[in-house]
Amino acid sequence: SQTYRITLLPGDGIGPEILGVTVEILKEIGRQFDLSFEFSEALIGGSAIDAVGSPLPEETLTQCRASDAVLLAAIGGYKWDNLPRHLRPETGLLGLRAGLNLFANLRPATILPQLVDASSLRREVIEGVDIMVVRELTGGIYFGEPKGVFATESGEKRGVNTMAYTEGEIDRIARVAFETAQKRNHRLCSVDKANVLEVSQLWRDRVTALAPAYGDVELSHLYVDNAAMQLVRWPQQFDTIVTGNLFGDILSDIAAMLTGSIGMLPSASLGADGPGVFEPVHGSAPDIAGQDKANPLAQVLSAAMMLRYGLHQAAAADRLETAVTTVLDQGYRTGDIASEGSTILGCQAMGDALLKAL
Amino acid sequence: SQTYRITLLPGDGIGPEILGVTVEILKEIGRQFDLSFEFSEALIGGSAIDAVGSPLPEETLTQCRASDAVLLAAIGGYKWDNLPRHLRPETGLLGLRAGLNLFANLRPATILPQLVDASSLRREVIEGVDIMVVRELTGGIYFGEPKGVFATESGEKRGVNTMAYTEGEIDRIARVAFETAQKRNHRLCSVDKANVLEVSQLWRDRVTALAPAYGDVELSHLYVDNAAMQLVRWPQQFDTIVTGNLFGDILSDIAAMLTGSIGMLPSASLGADGPGVFEPVHGSAPDIAGQDKANPLAQVLSAAMMLRYGLHQAAAADRLETAVTTVLDQGYRTGDIASEGSTILGCQAMGDALLKAL
Ligand SMILES: CC(C)[C@H](C(=O)O)[C@@H](O)C(=O)O
Ligand SMILES: CC(C)[C@H](C(=O)O)[C@@H](O)C(=O)O
Repeated sequence: SQTYRITLLPGDGIGPEILGVTVEILKEIGRQFDLSFEFSEALIGGSAIDAVGSPLPEETLTQCRASDAVLLAAIGGYKWDNLPRHLRPETGLLGLRAGLNLFANLRPATILPQLVDASSLRREVIEGVDIMVVRELTGGIYFGEPKGVFATESGEKRGVNTMAYTEGEIDRIARVAFETAQKRNHRLCSVDKANVLEVSQLWRDRVTALAPAYGDVELSHLYVDNAAMQLVRWPQQFDTIVTGNLFGDILSDIAAMLTGSIGMLPSASLGADGPGVFEPVHGSAPDIAGQDKANPLAQVLSAAMMLRYGLHQAAAADRLETAVTTVLDQGYRTGDIASEGSTILGCQAMGDALLKAL
Repeated sequence: SQTYRITLLPGDGIGPEILGVTVEILKEIGRQFDLSFEFSEALIGGSAIDAVGSPLPEETLTQCRASDAVLLAAIGGYKWDNLPRHLRPETGLLGLRAGLNLFANLRPATILPQLVDASSLRREVIEGVDIMVVRELTGGIYFGEPKGVFATESGEKRGVNTMAYTEGEIDRIARVAFETAQKRNHRLCSVDKANVLEVSQLWRDRVTALAPAYGDVELSHLYVDNAAMQLVRWPQQFDTIVTGNLFGDILSDIAAMLTGSIGMLPSASLGADGPGVFEPVHGSAPDIAGQDKANPLAQVLSAAMMLRYGLHQAAAADRLETAVTTVLDQGYRTGDIASEGSTILGCQAMGDALLKAL
């Protein structure tokens, strides 16, 4: 039997609950597919700040690097919102992305037929939506230098950040996106602001230059403001979207919210080699933490992405995803996706229902 | 009778048609309110490139500066999309904003009861939405230096843009936003990415510091990704939004598209003194140009914003806005907002209907 070392990063808020449920389910998957998982926990985010004074302790990074995949739950909470920047939970997350060189962030936004009515969009507009946002994750304005608050000549403060991409950075994320589109519906939309930004013009030029190597993918380009509008107007037009770090942050969240059920959405962050990080799109929901109310399904689906993209165990990933649709078909819902006639379960009970479905 | 010098910038595509209709309507308003308008045309955008080789001829800027207000239609088109940057229609628009120091861009997104069904959002989610986006327009990443494509040490190209704001730039747009909120529902949401960007942290600090001077306005803050999601999830929660240039570009377009009828939405761009520029949110729609199909209502409502914010003729602005709701109540629609049972009119005929309603 194959053995995988998995680093678990429960983080903050509902993190420990949803990750706990997911680990039980992975163990069952392991039994069924003859895979063995060696789980070990590490600290990140607010709970790491509380425990050791840093949102990303060096040991966490070391432990992640030594593992085959990282399963992250969620970080952050009001409690740490007003700390100085280097002590903020988000800084730990950005450090993890940079430290593991996770340049490719895959964020699917899929509307499950069982949950169409959770969307704020009209049924006919949202039905069948299946979008994959490929977001660059270790470059752009998130990491560009110079950055900071500086004094101008007149003594006034000036805040500065730099949006920058090299050709190499653009090429590697574009390749991931073209390959992703090849495994999907062969349509790739690259999003930038090339009518205003030089960095976007370089982005557009490079993506265009790579297109001939992927002759089976139909490439289009949209400006970010138009892309945001089109997502709202007619999301069914999109297959795969590729964009930079900041635009990807915004667009993937729009795509996620279109579904109306962000408690269902997983993500994968991948590097060139080394372990990927798999985590829900939703946050740490401090207001419902510890109450056994959280929806564990995005975390479970993140584990499925881990199986598929991180460990290349597609059959096991399929099984897990099927279990999720099964429990939904059975009418089970957590509070966030409840609708008339459904049976509301807590986090733990949803986990049990999944185990049964497996 | 008061005389106003109005510079007309018809621009490209459907621009001349919708502006032509609007001028006729303004003349009628002038007769009714004893205002006299001296209209003069100037070149901008693609048609300026074709005529004189520049998207913003110096004379246009001079003429705008010498007028009381500028009424702009729309710029751009496929024809000019692949020209070098300094020869692009957009560059003319950015030059106009910078040249007239138009730092405050007001973009209302209002859903008219007659057009609720044009939205891709469910009726109960969109009904009653009335948002004003106050976008900073002459700073941020649109204008920040350094910008360009540079060679790295290894000879690779690197595209760079700079997102920067000084305290003074933040303060003046924040003041406009607080004052706008005071005239509306007294709620202001400031949008930034302060959890990642230093420039956003300065933005948030300054906006927060100004709040006590506007004790009757309830201030909140959202990160841009969350703001984009909240606009889709529950737009009715917003009153006035203030944000930087790039985030405002994206969020105002989302807000506009929520209504489902961007052919209806006007905008105002204002400076400290000097003339404002008033223009529709929609583009130049080259595909329907010259066919008398365009919706002139956003341009007409832009003229209403000109009367209200540029010329301080609120009664005349009210009259114009009432005329627009009247023709909608009469069931008249252009093709873009047509629905069952409505009477479809061309651009010119819609103008005639408005004249009658006046
Ligand atoms: C928490 C924050 C730093 C992060 C980001 O902006 O990337 C989050 O919004 C995300 O999308 O994962
Ligand atoms: C045409 C473009 C330069 C412009 C912008 O990005 O500001 C447009 O999108 C707008 O919002 O007015």
